[in-house]
Amino acid sequence: MEITPGPLLRMIDSPDDLKKLSREQLHQVCDELRQYIIDVVSVYGGHFAASLGVVELSVALHYIYNTPYDQLVWDVGHQAYGHKILTGRRDNFITNRKYKGLSGFPKRSESEYDTFGVGHSSTSISAALGMAMAAKYKNENRKSVAIIGDGAMTAGMAFEALNHAGVADADMLVILNDNCMSIDPNVGALKEYLTDISTSHTYNKLRDDVWNMLGKLPVGKNFSRDMASKLETSVKGMVSKSSNLFESLKIRYFGPIDGHNITKLVDTLKDLRNIPGPKLLHIVTVKGKGYALAEKDQTKWHAPGLFDKVTGEIYKKTFETPQPPKYQDVFGHTIVELAEKNAKIMGITPAMPSGSSLKIMMEKMPDRAFDVGICEQHAATLSAGLATQGLRVFCNIYSSFTQRAYDQVVHDIAIQKLPVVMCLDRAGLVGEDGPTHHGAYDIPFFRCIPNMIISAPMNEQELRNLMYTAQLDSNEYPFVIRYPRGEGVMPQWKTPFEAITVGKGRKLKDGEEIAILSLGHPGNFATAAIRELKTAGINPAHYDMRFVKPLDEALLHEVFGKYQKVVTVEDGTVVGGFGSAILEFMSRHGYHAQVKMLGIPDRIVEHGTLKELHRECGYDAAAIAETVKEMMKDSVKFNTLIAG
Amino acid sequence: MEITPGPLLRMIDSPDDLKKLSREQLHQVCDELRQYIIDVVSVYGGHFAASLGVVELSVALHYIYNTPYDQLVWDVGHQAYGHKILTGRRDNFITNRKYKGLSGFPKRSESEYDTFGVGHSSTSISAALGMAMAAKYKNENRKSVAIIGDGAMTAGMAFEALNHAGVADADMLVILNDNCMSIDPNVGALKEYLTDISTSHTYNKLRDDVWNMLGKLPVGKNFSRDMASKLETSVKGMVSKSSNLFESLKIRYFGPIDGHNITKLVDTLKDLRNIPGPKLLHIVTVKGKGYALAEKDQTKWHAPGLFDKVTGEIYKKTFETPQPPKYQDVFGHTIVELAEKNAKIMGITPAMPSGSSLKIMMEKMPDRAFDVGICEQHAATLSAGLATQGLRVFCNIYSSFTQRAYDQVVHDIAIQKLPVVMCLDRAGLVGEDGPTHHGAYDIPFFRCIPNMIISAPMNEQELRNLMYTAQLDSNEYPFVIRYPRGEGVMPQWKTPFEAITVGKGRKLKDGEEIAILSLGHPGNFATAAIRELKTAGINPAHYDMRFVKPLDEALLHEVFGKYQKVVTVEDGTVVGGFGSAILEFMSRHGYHAQVKMLGIPDRIVEHGTLKELHRECGYDAAAIAETVKEMMKDSVKFNTLIAG
Repeated sequence: MEITPGPLLRMIDSPDDLKKLSREQLHQVCDELRQYIIDVVSVYGGHFAASLGVVELSVALHYIYNTPYDQLVWDVGHQAYGHKILTGRRDNFITNRKYKGLSGFPKRSESEYDTFGVGHSSTSISAALGMAMAAKYKNENRKSVAIIGDGAMTAGMAFEALNHAGVADADMLVILNDNCMSIDPNVGALKEYLTDISTSHTYNKLRDDVWNMLGKLPVGKNFSRDMASKLETSVKGMVSKSSNLFESLKIRYFGPIDGHNITKLVDTLKDLRNIPGPKLLHIVTVKGKGYALAEKDQTKWHAPGLFDKVTGEIYKKTFETPQPPKYQDVFGHTIVELAEKNAKIMGITPAMPSGSSLKIMMEKMPDRAFDVGICEQHAATLSAGLATQGLRVFCNIYSSFTQRAYDQVVHDIAIQKLPVVMCLDRAGLVGEDGPTHHGAYDIPFFRCIPNMIISAPMNEQELRNLMYTAQLDSNEYPFVIRYPRGEGVMPQWKTPFEAITVGKGRKLKDGEEIAILSLGHPGNFATAAIRELKTAGINPAHYDMRFVKPLDEALLHEVFGKYQKVVTVEDGTVVGGFGSAILEFMSRHGYHAQVKMLGIPDRIVEHGTLKELHRECGYDAAAIAETVKEMMKDSVKFNTLIAG
Repeated sequence: MEITPGPLLRMIDSPDDLKKLSREQLHQVCDELRQYIIDVVSVYGGHFAASLGVVELSVALHYIYNTPYDQLVWDVGHQAYGHKILTGRRDNFITNRKYKGLSGFPKRSESEYDTFGVGHSSTSISAALGMAMAAKYKNENRKSVAIIGDGAMTAGMAFEALNHAGVADADMLVILNDNCMSIDPNVGALKEYLTDISTSHTYNKLRDDVWNMLGKLPVGKNFSRDMASKLETSVKGMVSKSSNLFESLKIRYFGPIDGHNITKLVDTLKDLRNIPGPKLLHIVTVKGKGYALAEKDQTKWHAPGLFDKVTGEIYKKTFETPQPPKYQDVFGHTIVELAEKNAKIMGITPAMPSGSSLKIMMEKMPDRAFDVGICEQHAATLSAGLATQGLRVFCNIYSSFTQRAYDQVVHDIAIQKLPVVMCLDRAGLVGEDGPTHHGAYDIPFFRCIPNMIISAPMNEQELRNLMYTAQLDSNEYPFVIRYPRGEGVMPQWKTPFEAITVGKGRKLKDGEEIAILSLGHPGNFATAAIRELKTAGINPAHYDMRFVKPLDEALLHEVFGKYQKVVTVEDGTVVGGFGSAILEFMSRHGYHAQVKMLGIPDRIVEHGTLKELHRECGYDAAAIAETVKEMMKDSVKFNTLIAG
């Protein structure tokens, strides 16, 4: 389908072209840019509402700043579609998030305008401050701008960067894009604070009132000039220095201004570009701006999938038979089921109520399930605190975001042996979000920590049973359950609960000469591979190990007692992962089988569909079958068979 | 040496005994408690200045709060000596930080008064909030108090917790102990802010002035009653709602008060105990209070070692010959040497200028070396930002604190392949600080990340050469250099620089039948073991592998081509570590040697001296020798030899 950008946008191949336009023409550029994003995303998919909200900002920044010499850092880069389109990637934008196409996030290797790779939130101020400090050191008049949402501002590292910026004396602008939304509505005190100062009785209005009135203070009896001057000092002192959270941190605060007023934005940025030192511009925008449905339901339209841009109908595949649910929904419904029976259960999510489906519990049991904001560190230690009081906390964090709670899991949960249940959603490759979001590393980074139980369900029933097991009083350990993005395999998933013995795997089938040991959902790839191999006369055994820690040593003695060839399969890096755990077992017990480890290879895996990536990384069904065949090449029996 | 607590302290076996005393007697309790800490620490060692600073607070808290039912969480627990002494551990306190003795930090398994294990900073608010939320949910009138320093308050997770606390409607008190110090003096905007409101023209004074004057505002021409009322609203609004950083976050702010005034503390805490909701009490204290030398040089007296409490002389061992330097000093001097020649070099430390010895560079090159506060996350991403501008950043973080920068290293440094040099001090076991501080996990948690170079020097010269190599333009990768706490082995350490080929190990000696592969400083244990084994007629080969990633595959082919028995030694966990990397190599290449992996076992290792812990964990020289002997038991040649 041919998508044509508007007449002005069509001519903008770089910010230089944008700068040639008059200020009046910028309105039209914004309209065309917004329309182009709607046109492309409705047909090709991707994140939606965030980029619509910063159309005017994107245009204004590239109009005023001398990019790429000046450097823009777009926090949680899925807001950067406008930026990408304006910086030479307009026509290529239809490949956004496709295999081998443009990344859905800014990416240094993709464009010199992408100064910093941003996928996880709240990194932009630190990065921009680094750029600003480098410019100062190198005596360059280069400007750095971090564009960060109010949601991302809740993460601790944003605060750490502000605390440093306030004293670093470097020339940096932070643009706080206040739209009250992460993927879900923002939570926390900061959000309320920003709302306070952005509502009609704004902080600025108050400040102006006070300042104006101070100029008019009468001097008379009971109110000496001295007192007046003292009062003025007091008030000014408070207003200019302490009255604002950011100014408390020595960051000059400007705003709030309307982030959809392109003229005002251009004027303000022009001024700010010449003000030295650390400063923050507070703009207020509407996520989804310009697409009425998205403005109304911002969570739904964060990344809606394909849709009819005219009617707003979001296309859904229809099926004649019941389909398997998403793993996240199995989690969301199951925790409610368990919590109804076990009053000790609580649920915690750092800003992913929808993505984790904890929302279901938050709606049904608002006193027992909480969104704590984009605060993985706090989420983990808060869970530990709750656990010290005998509660059974399910703390649900995407695998790649768990990296940000790593110290807290080690220090507050594992060392203290608190039985917090860490549900790692999006574990393994995640597809279109790419390298920043792949949950590739959690097996090695948790496996090395003492006291941890680490499990991965092969299907929905297993997820339910692992969740059931983890919340039993008999479990005294931190309990990780990692499961992948997307759908499972069981349309009839709501099976009765059954406790699983911790550290017990399952033999799915016996076999000859070769065994496949799988962890988690790739067990299904192995099952498919085994079906295929049957036609070639190869009959591998198959074990679903379930736990990478503790390992089922009894089962492994059986495996290595019977099989000299073993394939391990996991949806995680092969460096230090499940396969390595098997090698360590072998080394401890003196087994010498031939082992082939399949999983995510030791390189940065780019974006694409899950299918494409599982293929590329060599652990889909076909790759498993191929590996087994290759390993069986030297088998006497097998060769006799095929020769015969 | 007999140390006798004072007459009141002698009778306090639990906070119940303390509560029986009159308020007037508390002064004496504080004096005795302070003296007891001085007496014990001067003779038995430990952290010093922090606990002296909170003597009055410790007494007041246990006097007013119903501990252990009410729950105190002491951030960075080395301030909790007074708390320990008051809660049944007075006589046992002489075992503080000794092998099998009391922990230097609060520890749940040690006492019911230790509600939360606290070693790393800034976890207390999250933990206390969890306790408070649990109390609310369980409808218990239990109180939670987090005691946190202004240094710890700079870490992002403290901010995350405050942001949540402000809206969580749970009954929690945060005591902000403002002493302007971490181990080194605090840095950052927050510190300046707190100083502003604590100095004589205090925030409170200003607030009182304004409020008083508002009551006296005259009404006359140019200043209508309406305007006056509007002004009053404006000012009150700002003062009570936005004028204070903490109140911006919906935390009720009280203070600042003198934290050494026991009467005032007791009165204030008594009031606060009955005020519901989230609140913060700002107290101002002097780190080292009551010991003049410590008040004067707080960094030196943070943990001074043994000293003469009368003269203040800190005992130092004296030697007749030159001794090897600490690794941290080799780092500190070497970075200056390198930076003098390479203008691209910068140094970053999160609050450890003394501990890392980056201080040396900060003093000589203040525009090129920075302390960013207790902000490991920011430190890593700031380094990445600087690296995008072509600078060569040495970011120095203790191994166990690197856990808190993990996502930033993955997301901002490794995925982007930025050549930041991560110097991991205190890698491996750290001794007396114990489980929260052991740098046990960095090899597996970094080894699984693509693009990383991971190295460990066996001695000072190797550290220098690795640092030299890492800053060369030819290095395009993130470069980890891990080295241990304490002294090296080379008195003459200032050797000329020599580039090391990345991924190249060293053969230290050939041998027969068995090879030892070591990583980093335990190579010296291996050398000692080999000396010992010689007398038993065993002659192992020894390879210092230097790099765990990339591995020296050529060298490993040589090893596994020649030796059927291999011992690996590392100062890190054996789960997923260096030994596992060797097993992975063997699996990829089909080698089947017998491998024994020595290192930190898969359990929480407690505190003790390094010597005691290396022994306990089985990788000191004696243990290596034992392991080799055990493995050689079935050697025909060796048995013939010893039989002969």
